[in-house]
Order: sequence, then structure tokens, then C-alpha cells
Amino acid sequence: MRGAVLHAPGDVRLERREDPTIVESTDAIIRLPATCICGSDLWSYRGIEAVEAPAPMGHEYVGIVEAVGSAVTTIKPGQFVIGSFFASDNTCEICRSGYQSSCIHRELMGAIGTQAELARVPLADGTLVATPEVPPDDLVPSFLAASDVLGTGWFAAVAAEVAPGKTVAVVGDGAVGLLAVLAARHLGGERIIVMSRHEPRQKLALEFGATDIIEERGDEGAARIKDLTGGLGAHSVIEAVGTPESMLQAIHATRPGGHVGYVGVTHGDLPGDELFFSHTHLHGGPAPVRRFLPQLIDLIWNRKIDPGKVFDLTLPLDQVADGYRAMDERRAIKTLLCP
Amino acid sequence: MRGAVLHAPGDVRLERREDPTIVESTDAIIRLPATCICGSDLWSYRGIEAVEAPAPMGHEYVGIVEAVGSAVTTIKPGQFVIGSFFASDNTCEICRSGYQSSCIHRELMGAIGTQAELARVPLADGTLVATPEVPPDDLVPSFLAASDVLGTGWFAAVAAEVAPGKTVAVVGDGAVGLLAVLAARHLGGERIIVMSRHEPRQKLALEFGATDIIEERGDEGAARIKDLTGGLGAHSVIEAVGTPESMLQAIHATRPGGHVGYVGVTHGDLPGDELFFSHTHLHGGPAPVRRFLPQLIDLIWNRKIDPGKVFDLTLPLDQVADGYRAMDERRAIKTLLCP
Repeated sequence: MRGAVLHAPGDVRLERREDPTIVESTDAIIRLPATCICGSDLWSYRGIEAVEAPAPMGHEYVGIVEAVGSAVTTIKPGQFVIGSFFASDNTCEICRSGYQSSCIHRELMGAIGTQAELARVPLADGTLVATPEVPPDDLVPSFLAASDVLGTGWFAAVAAEVAPGKTVAVVGDGAVGLLAVLAARHLGGERIIVMSRHEPRQKLALEFGATDIIEERGDEGAARIKDLTGGLGAHSVIEAVGTPESMLQAIHATRPGGHVGYVGVTHGDLPGDELFFSHTHLHGGPAPVRRFLPQLIDLIWNRKIDPGKVFDLTLPLDQVADGYRAMDERRAIKTLLCP
Repeated sequence: MRGAVLHAPGDVRLERREDPTIVESTDAIIRLPATCICGSDLWSYRGIEAVEAPAPMGHEYVGIVEAVGSAVTTIKPGQFVIGSFFASDNTCEICRSGYQSSCIHRELMGAIGTQAELARVPLADGTLVATPEVPPDDLVPSFLAASDVLGTGWFAAVAAEVAPGKTVAVVGDGAVGLLAVLAARHLGGERIIVMSRHEPRQKLALEFGATDIIEERGDEGAARIKDLTGGLGAHSVIEAVGTPESMLQAIHATRPGGHVGYVGVTHGDLPGDELFFSHTHLHGGPAPVRRFLPQLIDLIWNRKIDPGKVFDLTLPLDQVADGYRAMDERRAIKTLLCP
């Protein structure tokens, strides 16, 4: 099969890779009608995270099941399935408490690399959720979004305890931030303030349910949110970037007793005293997307939400390098790749 | 009046200070039958926080009301009252949400200095809670504990979402950590693991309801807690020290999806990636003791809890320097001072 491999910062190539096979009896093999590039893929593409050896890329996926191992009981060949960037057994105590991305048997799909024609999915029964039938083509981008960016934005909004009547602020206008807006609207957030300077992203934020856009950043951005909230700060703030600056911007924009949901992969150090005196609740980490998949699949299947709109660039898989470049240069919000 | 003043690290003196007077119409003046030294007073006593000018010390207090300003309506002279280390109006939106220590009009009692015979309490109606009658002498230490260490330990247990059936771990065996054990027991924690190497503190922890004592620290301590919890970590972990090491010990001892309640005044930087991948909920900060005072006063008045046991050294106020030394050298858990 063909799959994307990162050789060095800025150097991603489509290559011949070996076809995946059933390794464990709990595996499934899927054929991907579409895959995509994630903002978090840019950490290594930009050299911020080290690239030590050629690495298969991609962790977002949907697909038609081609084969299953002998121990797989609920997932069947021919089904259209969606899974998250962590494979999980969905039966351990941590999974049952809703934290499947910390499953005691979790496996990182990024190490498998789903920017490819085929992928092996470990722990298929626990990891994969099938749609009622094979969906029409126009729904595929939305199901693909559910695999990570929608599920991650949703978790961020839940972690930030968005609820009816609350004021929500979103730091980060990438696909996750934008889909956190969609989630916040669905969860009843009354006022949803998005920090963005980029017109196409502002437009999509408004489509997804944002009520206010502010262009200020950092402490100025936090101050602007305080202005908009009677000097107190937002009830719920979503952090979808992952730098120390964006975390502090989020914390400073939150009222005492408020909630920060953070899903940008946090880099760098955070000053303990700022956390302490902010009086905020902090919750986040790698989103347990599996928790939300049944609900998200239902909303997409019934066309209640349209998260696939975050894909503003579609390329054949063999132009994967162009896809990375477009996202790196912020010309695209998110790139969909067709194998 | 006489009051304690810190001149330089290690140099605390009892001095003549001017008698407090009503400054704002919302003030009260109280006469203290007892005051005490807090673990957090040691940050400046040890020179970890700078001492820039002679500073009045102390922020814990109970007292008989001597006078009130013209705008005070609910607090009356002759009442026995308890307040927290932040004066608060108890009417603003932040107070009403239960975060009185971030009240928009808050005033720091530590700047007033309550290791003294008399103290001015701002925002008396919002800050002070009166007991049903003037209590018998033997209850005074427990009410004094409610002013900070009990209220702070209680908040830590609430922030860590202690509840029936949960396993709780407590990092820190000072007065706050020990009273967090008492709170965790009261809130229904099933197993309460305390990290302590100090025999008198271990004994008090067991009296307050601890079920397990472990002597390991740091990563070893966290690993021991994982051993005791099927490899997963505790559901609720209370951090009552305030160093980066103790914060990481707490975070590492918590299961994914679990809750860390942190009330040690956090110093230093925390690695963002450790927070992110821990998947924990973090909540803490300066305890909104005022939220809990009515409940705590009721429990003490009816002799359901005996938090005053944390005072294992009682000295006359003029031996305040000895009191600091005993706590600095960990010879005393907490020093009560009698003006």
C-alpha cells in the first residue's frame, strides 16, 4: 500500500509501505476512503518535536473493515467504522470511567500511521464504532472529523463544563477550536467568544455558533474577555493550542471558580502560582474520543451537525506533502486526503 | 496592643502596635482569645518569600466583637465570630458562586496581621460568621482551626471530589493535610492513604480517619499508591505542601480522570506535558473558607469533629518567636498563641 512517512522536519513523502496484516487476534484491518492531517502532526513536521527515524504519519481514520482477527466479535467485514487516535479495550476500569485514551491497554494509532490506504486497528471491538449502514460519500468528511478533531473539541467543551447560560471563550482557531465552538453551541453555551484574526476561520466559527470574535491575543485578549464579562472572566474556557502562552491566556480569561478545558498538546512549563491564584478548574489531556463516538455518529448520521466543514482543502493522498505545507502556512484549516 | 512583626527571615518579634480602629463603615474590631501560626507563614519566615519591610504576621483568627462600623448590620458587639484569611463581601457574583477568597472586594487579613490582641476585620457582615453563643473555652482551638487549616483541608477534599467509595491520597502531613484527612473521612472517602514519616502526625492522621500510612515520597510514593490501587492510582488526591515536587507526586498518584485538590501555595513551575498526559482534574488555590464556615461551625459546636487537635503546642503570645521556631523545626504541627 501507499502511506505517508516523515523523514525530517518539512520532509513528508508518500511511499510504498507493507500492507498491514492481522497481528493480534483482536485486530481489524480497514481500508480508508479518506484520511487527513492534524494540527498535532505539525509539531514534528515543524521540528518542534524531534524526528529520530522515518515515521509513518497520521492518526485519524474512518474505513471499511476488510478483515478481523479471530477474537473480534462485534466488528464485521464490510462495516463502515470510526475509531480514535488511541486504540482502547473499552472494558478496563479507566475506559469504563470514560477515559479510554488512558486505557490500560491503549495503543497509539499515530505509531501505526493512518495517512495510508489501509490500517491495522488494535483492540477492534473496543476501539471501533460502526455506522448504522455504509454512509453516503458526503458524510464521510464529518465522520472523519469525529475520529479526532470533533471528538477533541467536544471533550474540551465537556472538560470546560460548558452548559446552558454560561459564557464560553475559545483560545485557538484551528479545527479543534472551531469544533469546540460547535460543541459549546450544542451543549447550550449562551455566549461563545472566539479569539481569531483569520477571516475564513472567523466565518466558520460564526457558522458553528460563535457569538463574538475578538482579535486581541495574550494578556490583551484575556483583558478583552474580562471586559465582555463584567470584569469577571468567562465561565468556561477552551484551550486548543498547547503553548504556555495560550494556556496562560486561557487561565487569565477564566473567572475564579470557572473551568478551563485544555486539549492543545501542552508544551513548556506553567507557573504554579498563576494556576494556584487563578482559582480555576483545569482539565484536559488527550481526548477520550471513544466516549463521545456513539453520540457524535448519531448526530452526524442524522445530519444535526456538519463538522466536515473544517476540511477546506481536499487532495489526493499522493499530494500529502502539499497538504502539510498548506496547513503549516495556515493556508488551509485542515486537509483531507483521498487514497 | 501587642502584635507579631517579622523583620527578616527568622526574626519575628512581639511588638507594640497601634490599636486598630474602624476605618471603613463596614469594619469590625475583634479581641482575640487565641491566634495561631500557619505553615504558610513559614514561607516568609524561612526567606523563601522575600521580607521587604517589617510585616505584621498572622491571618487566622477568632474573637469577640468589640465594635462595628455604622454600615454593619448582622454582626454585633459581644458575638464570638470566625472569619477567613480573606475578608469578602459575600454578595458579589464570585462570592455567590462559592469563591469568596476571590471576592471582587477581597482584602488579605495577612496584611492586617492577626497574631495580635486585636484585629480590624473589613467587610464584617460578609466575612464573619457568629457562633450560636459564646463557646466554652475548650472549643476555641477548633473554631480557630476553622479559620484556615480546617477550611483549607475541607476545600482540598471537596476540590479533589472525595465521595463515598473513593480512594483518597493525601500529600503533606501538616495541619492542612491532617485536616484534609478529617474532611475526607466526613465526605465518605473509603480508603484514605496519608504520606507521612513523622510518628505523631501519623498517629493524628489515623485518629482523623486515615486507613493507610505510607512513608515513601516522590515518585516512589506515587508508585506505592499505584500498588495499593490496582496499578491505577487514587481517585482523589490532596496536595497540601506547595512545591513542584509535591504537586508532581500528587499528579502521579492520581488515576486518569481522577481529581487533584491542591491547597499548598504552589511555588515554582510545573511541566505542561505532565499535566496534560496525567488526564487529571486540577482544582485548588486559596481556599474559599467562608463557603464552608456555617457547616464547620455547626459540626464543631455539636462536637461532631475535633479539628483543634492539630494544635500540639500552646504558648503565650509573647513567646511567638518560640512558636515559629518549633514549627520551622517540625517539632510542632501547629502552634496556638494566647494573647
